Amino acid sequence: MDFASWMSAVQQRTESALERLLPAAAAAPARLHQAMRYAALGGGKRVRPLLCHAAGEIFGADAVRLDRAACAVEMIHVYSLVHDDLPCMDDDVLRRGKPTCHVEYDEATALLAGDALQTQAFQVLAEEPVATDAGRRLAMLALLAHAAGSRGMAGGQAIDLGAVGKTLTLEELEFMHIHKTGALIRAAVLLGAHCGDADVDALERLAHFANRAGLLFQVVDDILDAEASTATLGKTAGKDAAQGKPTYVNLLGNQRAKDQAAELRTDAHAALAGFGERALRLHQLTDFIVERSF
Amino acid sequence: MDFASWMSAVQQRTESALERLLPAAAAAPARLHQAMRYAALGGGKRVRPLLCHAAGEIFGADAVRLDRAACAVEMIHVYSLVHDDLPCMDDDVLRRGKPTCHVEYDEATALLAGDALQTQAFQVLAEEPVATDAGRRLAMLALLAHAAGSRGMAGGQAIDLGAVGKTLTLEELEFMHIHKTGALIRAAVLLGAHCGDADVDALERLAHFANRAGLLFQVVDDILDAEASTATLGKTAGKDAAQGKPTYVNLLGNQRAKDQAAELRTDAHAALAGFGERALRLHQLTDFIVERSF
Repeated sequence: MDFASWMSAVQQRTESALERLLPAAAAAPARLHQAMRYAALGGGKRVRPLLCHAAGEIFGADAVRLDRAACAVEMIHVYSLVHDDLPCMDDDVLRRGKPTCHVEYDEATALLAGDALQTQAFQVLAEEPVATDAGRRLAMLALLAHAAGSRGMAGGQAIDLGAVGKTLTLEELEFMHIHKTGALIRAAVLLGAHCGDADVDALERLAHFANRAGLLFQVVDDILDAEASTATLGKTAGKDAAQGKPTYVNLLGNQRAKDQAAELRTDAHAALAGFGERALRLHQLTDFIVERSF
Repeated sequence: MDFASWMSAVQQRTESALERLLPAAAAAPARLHQAMRYAALGGGKRVRPLLCHAAGEIFGADAVRLDRAACAVEMIHVYSLVHDDLPCMDDDVLRRGKPTCHVEYDEATALLAGDALQTQAFQVLAEEPVATDAGRRLAMLALLAHAAGSRGMAGGQAIDLGAVGKTLTLEELEFMHIHKTGALIRAAVLLGAHCGDADVDALERLAHFANRAGLLFQVVDDILDAEASTATLGKTAGKDAAQGKPTYVNLLGNQRAKDQAAELRTDAHAALAGFGERALRLHQLTDFIVERSF
């Protein structure tokens, strides 16, 4: 299977798994469940599920297990988008080419839908068999919680809030992104590996890969945001720069940001070397993250 | 130890445990961690931790284990208060006698603090030893997630939103409260019992107790809200009725609401009968829930 077909297959099975693991649209309270499904279904590149599946394939993990872990990570990601788009945060009206959740529904419903999507992520990991060993499943839950919480993604968003209008150093910008997007990308990779019963050594090497890939993803995102049009992105473009948020592009300039991306890609690939051919999809996915922009 | 001393001891150890299980105020991002601590520490009746400890005592559960489970439930409760007080929800400025989190900090920080408190609750259950058996710990995580999510507390809040200005039947009002407050009260009781390795039969009897106690708590809350002053409550009084939210008092009248409370108390006590003296604290706590008002 070529990479594009593999990617499309994972995206499709992620959509089906989310359909199944989210509460039914008709179940009470229906409006809340519809808002959760509106935010989570029918869009998105599914970068985190792709990373989860690609990492799991190194260890021959069962695809159905990977779907569950991938959905848990994606639900955390989607909840963060729903809350991030609220008027008190980024106040955005467009996401994945559709009106944002609070525009389509209302602010209170969007707030609760984000809240309940976070809960559902933990419920999936706690209820669905994602690994044989219960101890490993607890470790997976702790890993996702750490990645999502105040010392991970939510913490990164708080740092981001405090950074608006400030000049950050490159170190400070990296610290923000390691939390804001890096933590969940790392969790996606490691949860996929756990689904395949990866050992400690393999998990460490993948954590190193994921740290590089996470920053790579953000650098490329900044380049995209600076260059692309709103129509291409499916979300409001150029917004970070306009809001005075620090980006790699306005800190380094476009060319040096691209050099940085190239270097991170090399590092990420190097971290995968020991896995040989089994890491093919993760290797290709790293390239895809870069090449979607230039 | 008399009941008042027992209650005070549990409240104090809950405060200490929360101090320890919440991220340090100085840890980055400090403002977020301070907001989480501001919302969770130094106040509240700690009804859910009290229920958790009282249920655990039936089975001789270790008090340190109970602290952890109690804190997980309390973090979910506190996150829901922080989000519930936001301008897009109840828009409240006073909570536990202090300015609400978004008034003391700002809306975006309060949103993230609530988000991160929810995550922290699951992290505590996933990381801290709350039971010996890993399978039981997974069941405890699933139980808390179910109670907090769209088919539990968050779902109840959504039903509440949809009910403003409407006339509900008694059945509809009960359905709302079973979700909005009942689910988490039930989780507090059952998690406490799990800490003491309770068997299925005991868990079922306690679930029945908790269902009655949860409704009792809400009926009494409605009576309090209708009767008490803002100063006594430590939150804005008479607000539910003023907002056109359905309450037991405006549906049944004050006297019939009190009769209903008395009946629920009798049922709750009956469900505890089989546990004998070991259920003393849970029995007393049921009385306390009622007697704080009349």
